[in-house]
This record gives sequence, structure tokens and C-alpha cells, in this order.
Amino acid sequence: MTSRAATSCVPSEQAAVAQPVPARIGDTIDEIDTPALILELDAFEANVALMAAEAARMGVALRPHAKSNKCAEIARRQIAAGAVGVCVQKVSEAVALAEAGIDDILICNELVGKPKIAALVELSGRIRIAACVDDIGNVAAIERAAAAAGTTVSLLVDVDVGQGRCGVPPSQVVQLAQAIVSAPHLNFAGLQAYHGGAQHIRDVGERRAAALSAVSQAAAARDALAAARIACPLISGAGTGTFRYEGASGLYTEIQPGSYVFMDADYNRNRWEAFDAADNEAPPSRESPPLRQGPPFSQSLYVLATVMSRVDASRPIVDAGLKALAVDSGMPLVDGRPGVTYERASDEHGNLRLEAEGAGRQVAGLSLGDRVKLIPGHCDPTVNLYDWLVAVRGGRVEAVWPVTARGCLS
Amino acid sequence: MTSRAATSCVPSEQAAVAQPVPARIGDTIDEIDTPALILELDAFEANVALMAAEAARMGVALRPHAKSNKCAEIARRQIAAGAVGVCVQKVSEAVALAEAGIDDILICNELVGKPKIAALVELSGRIRIAACVDDIGNVAAIERAAAAAGTTVSLLVDVDVGQGRCGVPPSQVVQLAQAIVSAPHLNFAGLQAYHGGAQHIRDVGERRAAALSAVSQAAAARDALAAARIACPLISGAGTGTFRYEGASGLYTEIQPGSYVFMDADYNRNRWEAFDAADNEAPPSRESPPLRQGPPFSQSLYVLATVMSRVDASRPIVDAGLKALAVDSGMPLVDGRPGVTYERASDEHGNLRLEAEGAGRQVAGLSLGDRVKLIPGHCDPTVNLYDWLVAVRGGRVEAVWPVTARGCLS
Repeated sequence: MTSRAATSCVPSEQAAVAQPVPARIGDTIDEIDTPALILELDAFEANVALMAAEAARMGVALRPHAKSNKCAEIARRQIAAGAVGVCVQKVSEAVALAEAGIDDILICNELVGKPKIAALVELSGRIRIAACVDDIGNVAAIERAAAAAGTTVSLLVDVDVGQGRCGVPPSQVVQLAQAIVSAPHLNFAGLQAYHGGAQHIRDVGERRAAALSAVSQAAAARDALAAARIACPLISGAGTGTFRYEGASGLYTEIQPGSYVFMDADYNRNRWEAFDAADNEAPPSRESPPLRQGPPFSQSLYVLATVMSRVDASRPIVDAGLKALAVDSGMPLVDGRPGVTYERASDEHGNLRLEAEGAGRQVAGLSLGDRVKLIPGHCDPTVNLYDWLVAVRGGRVEAVWPVTARGCLS
Repeated sequence: MTSRAATSCVPSEQAAVAQPVPARIGDTIDEIDTPALILELDAFEANVALMAAEAARMGVALRPHAKSNKCAEIARRQIAAGAVGVCVQKVSEAVALAEAGIDDILICNELVGKPKIAALVELSGRIRIAACVDDIGNVAAIERAAAAAGTTVSLLVDVDVGQGRCGVPPSQVVQLAQAIVSAPHLNFAGLQAYHGGAQHIRDVGERRAAALSAVSQAAAARDALAAARIACPLISGAGTGTFRYEGASGLYTEIQPGSYVFMDADYNRNRWEAFDAADNEAPPSRESPPLRQGPPFSQSLYVLATVMSRVDASRPIVDAGLKALAVDSGMPLVDGRPGVTYERASDEHGNLRLEAEGAGRQVAGLSLGDRVKLIPGHCDPTVNLYDWLVAVRGGRVEAVWPVTARGCLS
């Protein structure tokens, strides 16, 4: 095995999927084997179109993050709608998507260690790709590997604009950029400036303030580069929660939202500014934006589960637990069944709870075998649990897509 | 595609693994690509031997739960050490392990819906297998499918002995058992009587009390069957936290511990009775057992991660986050690095925190590229995130085993 093989996903989409397909084209919802990951196509397509329209209106490039969906078919549809390419977090995701034909990928993350750098160098020879750095020794290691391969590798400097995770402060950007510019086999591509912590701030004003603080940090980095006469062709960042602020900043050239194609219970708990197709001519005021209760994007992702035990009718058990649903951002919500909550997850089970009836409210009971649509608390780690995404429309299975980069951890 | 295919894992172990092998035989720890799931073989082998010895001493059959490890190679080693077979939770796990040669499997769970019942019936025709029921309509559905296939299916009645999840109360066991006994294509195999909630009770006395309460519930079910003149050849249950109580009860004929082969941060937080090879002649008193701080089993499972960013030396970032570690039972622990904690997980990152030095304590710093061994909070959902288990001894890779039933959710 070569170091390339040690970090790559398998070469074809078919081979990248180990689990059997849980549904056939034309199946009804009740015929899908569970637990299964379901994509409502009408909502998904509206989300893809709305974000593409927003990016076009703001005059920024759209590079959706594929870490949420890991699915080459979704990337192809986003690109067909106007996206310039996709982002990923792991070089193994880039390898898997490149094998599936996606040829413009930004790895918004640092790659440390020989196998990962070798995979980046190899990809740099055949697709448009860049990765991020925040360490001078890592820049030197990538230069050595690129030189050995006779390839040029594009790198962005990762600026910490508030996340407090990876990335250097704006004051250290020039030193790293100069190291890249002066390395013969490296190309300085610009700045990665993403504030993940801002995305899930519930209050609109606080979220906007966090995003605008990220913009000012990115501006400081850009100004320092300009003072050092280093060209900065790209400033990339933003997510589903804040993309309108970075996108309208006049500074960011590219936005990286990912979750908007799916949404999840956590993102749906954010409050949102008025945001409709009708708004598109009027970008939100920074002072007192009109608020709306719901998010601008529609929930398209669900985990379909089956009631597998109901000895006590008030607490049915479904067949989707911790291995079928990420619970780091709370329990899933039960869709379309008022009075029913998903209370607790164990490895393979979910404990539902039916509210007692009364006060004018009637709670519809659940029978053994009934299907329940669950809205995951957090879409990204949930999708990674599945080999297939079952695309449905009008209650019928229209397509089944492989989760191309499922399990690409390295 | 047949309904069989819709629930089965792929037919061979090789094909069941979509991700490339993260290490080569003979690699050092530092050569393994990360994140990777690491098994320390010395600790693992001691755990397998100790549980086999305990079951033999108590005179009960050992049927380890494979839901924790999903690995045919581990099942083979447990069976070689004396186990009668394994347990699983999902019929798709049973299909995957059967394809890998494991031919005695108990599905400790209810199977609802045509594809799952079809898979159970198919397996019943070729290996020793049983599943659980807690619903009379489900018994009828399985009888119909077994009759159509001309096969006999073995079923256990699932008794709720305290878990409050699936299973009927002891008072309803006879009705279900009679339905099974009178169905021409069903075989009543016994009782499933597992109390999952008891396993993680920290206090030894309280945990023992919960387990003994489960034993008394199982005894009530067995007595009711005896009064109805229904033979009950098998009473199966217990887990890593309580197996000594059910095992020594004289009632249970079989124990089902799973996590003991790996252990995890959550199980390690339990307090334990004195429990050594030297104890084996003296089963623990039920009054005032001698306590020991640590668990009887050794931690053998780790997630190996790499320091991928350290702009601030006091808060290095590793490359293993929510997609590489289940956090439902808390953050992972950092092994062998005093003063270093894993504070927070995001999708692809882990934020470490180094304690400030002082008070006579020196905290060793971490450099970019350093490897960190993490003890998962909860082993079961963590293992399910990986395609390969890297078995190491003395700092070298000795073998790489496929996680045979990875992703078998249905």
C-alpha cells in the first residue's frame, strides 16, 4: 500500500458504499427499511436555489461546505446551480469527491502528517484544490512534499476570526503568507476566515455582531497583507447562520455555507431576519432588521424510524438510537406528530413520549410498525452515520444517493 | 433487489469495508493515519480471558454482545475462549456476522417490518439464531413469514426487568410464550431479561440492588412459565456492569456482556467490587463487598488522534471530533498525559486544554504532529464510526481487523 492509498477513499462511488440500499425507486415511505436517512427533494431543491440566488445577489462566489452532506450528487447539483466548487474538512473527503468527479475543492482545514500531505500533493497535480495552514513548520513540510513531487500546492492562511480553534491571529498572517510566497512550490491563494461559533447564536443581533466582528478581523488580515504588498485573491468563510453578513461585507469573496441544504433542529432554533425571495432586492438593515420566526431554509433531512415496541402506548420505542442519530446538539424532534417527543436515545433505541391528552388536545397514538420522521439535532455527524441518502418526493422514493465521503475521517 | 438484500450487509468482510486501511502491519503508532481506532491487544486478550474464566467459574454460558465491537474477528476469539456465540441488536448485524462465519447468534431485540423479519427467517434456515418479541401481532407476523418459507424460527420473550424500554412485564410473559408454543413454525427458546439501566450505576451497592431486582423479575417470569407448564430452556441477560450478579443468581443460564472487551470512560467511572484472578474462588458477598477503585477489565480501546494546530500552546487542537468520537456519555479522556483534557468536540476537531503549570506539577507540552490516545466516553457508538480496528502490541501494529457490522443499522 502506498501512502496515497492509506488516506484515500476507495476509487469508485459504488465501492465506497458498504451497506445495501435501503429502498427501491418508487417505494413508498412505508416500504423503506429503517433507520434510513431521508431527503425531501422539494425542500432540498428550494434550499439549493435560494442560497445560489443569495450569493448571486450579493456578488460573492458560493462554495458550499460538503462536510455536512459528504455527497457527490449534492455537490454536482450545487455546482449546476452556480456554486464554484465545494469545501471539505478532511483530505480523505477531497479524495473521495475528486474520484466522483468534483474538481474544485477547498480543504478549510490544516493537514498535518505525511499521509495527509502526500494526498494533498497528489490531488494538486490533477484538480483545482487548496488547503489551509496556521503553522510555519507545516508550510515547510508541504513545500518539501510538493518539491519532491514537482507540483505546486495552493495554500490559504487560516485566520482565527473569533472561533478560538485553528488559525493565526491577523497579526501573524503576513509572516505565514510570506513563507508561502517565497516557497517555490507553493501558491498563496488567500485567507480562510470562518467563525463557526457565530453560526448558532440564537439572537439575530448577537449573531450579526459576531459575524461583523469576524469581518473586521478578516479586514485587519487583508490590510496587513496589502501593507506587505502581498496580493490576496480570495477571502473565504461564513456559514448557514451568518452568510448574509460576510456575503454583504464587500470583503469576503466567497461564502462556505453547508447545512442550509438540510437544516437541523439546532439551526432551526436560531432566530432569523426577514428573508424571502421578495426580500432579495432589499438587503437587511444592520439596525433593526424585521424578524421572522422560522429559518429561511426548509427542513429537508430526516431520519426515518419505525415503532418497534409499544408495550406502554404512552412511550413507544423506535429503532433509531445513538448509532442512527447524533445527539451532541440535543435529541431529534418528531416531525408532524404534535404531542410526541423523542425523550432519550440509547445505542439502538429511541424512547418516545406521548403527552397525556387533555386541555383540548388530542395526541394521535402510534402503532407497532408506524413510521416516524425525526429531525436530527445536528445534521453533519448524523449524515456521516449513513451509507445512503434516500431522496423522496410526494411520499415516493425518487433516487438513492451514496454518501460518497461517509467515514472519511483522515 | 430482494428484501433480503435490502437488510443484509455486503456478502464478504472485504467488501463490507469502504475506507482504506489506516495502517500497515509493523507500523509504529506514529505511522498510523489518524483518526484511527486502536486496540491494545494485551489488555484486550486479558479481558477476553477474564470474562471467559468468570463465566466458567459461575457455571453460566457466555454469549458476548457484539453490538459494542461489531467485529467478526473478536467474536471468533471470544468463541475460541469458550463463548457459545454472540448477541447482536440488529438483524443486519446478524447477517454481516453470519457471512463472516459466526453461526450462533441471539438478536436481543424486536424485529418489526417485512425486510427485517424476512432476514431473520432466511438466517434461521442456515445458522443457530433467535430473536426477541414483546408483541403478539409481531409473533403472528413472524409465524406467517416462517410458514411461507417452511422454516422454524426461535423466539425469546423479552421481559422488562427494569429498563423501561422494550419487553413485557413478567405478568404478560405466559401469554406471549403460549402464542409462540402454539405456532407451528416458531420455537419458544426462553427469556431475554436485560437491565441496561443498571449497568452504569456508579455505586456498587445500588448497582447490585438493581441487578438483583432484575433477577427477581426474571424469576417471576420463569415461575409463571413453570406454572403454565411451559419449558424455559434459556434465561439470558446481564452486561459488563452487573454480570456477576445475574451470573451467580442460579437463575440466568447465559450472560451477555459486551463492553468488557474494550471498556470506556463511562464504564471506568463505575466503582467495582474487589475483583481479581485471586478472587475467583470467593464470590462477592452480598453484604459488604470489598471495594476497588478501578474496574476489573483494562482499557483496550483508544481513538488515536494527531495534534493538527497549536497556535496557542495551552490549547492544542486534535483531528478527532464528533465524527470520530461519540460524546453522548461525555468527552473522551486523554490517556497518559497528566494535565491535558479534551474540553470540547466540534465536527472534525477536538479542543484540548493544558493545565497551567504550578503547584509542583509540570505539564508536558504538545507539538504539532504529536499523537494523543483518547479513551472514548462510550465505546459502542464510537466503534460504529470506524471501518477498521488497528490491533497493536508493544507500540507496533500487529493486525488490522474490519469492523464487520459497521453501519448495520437496520
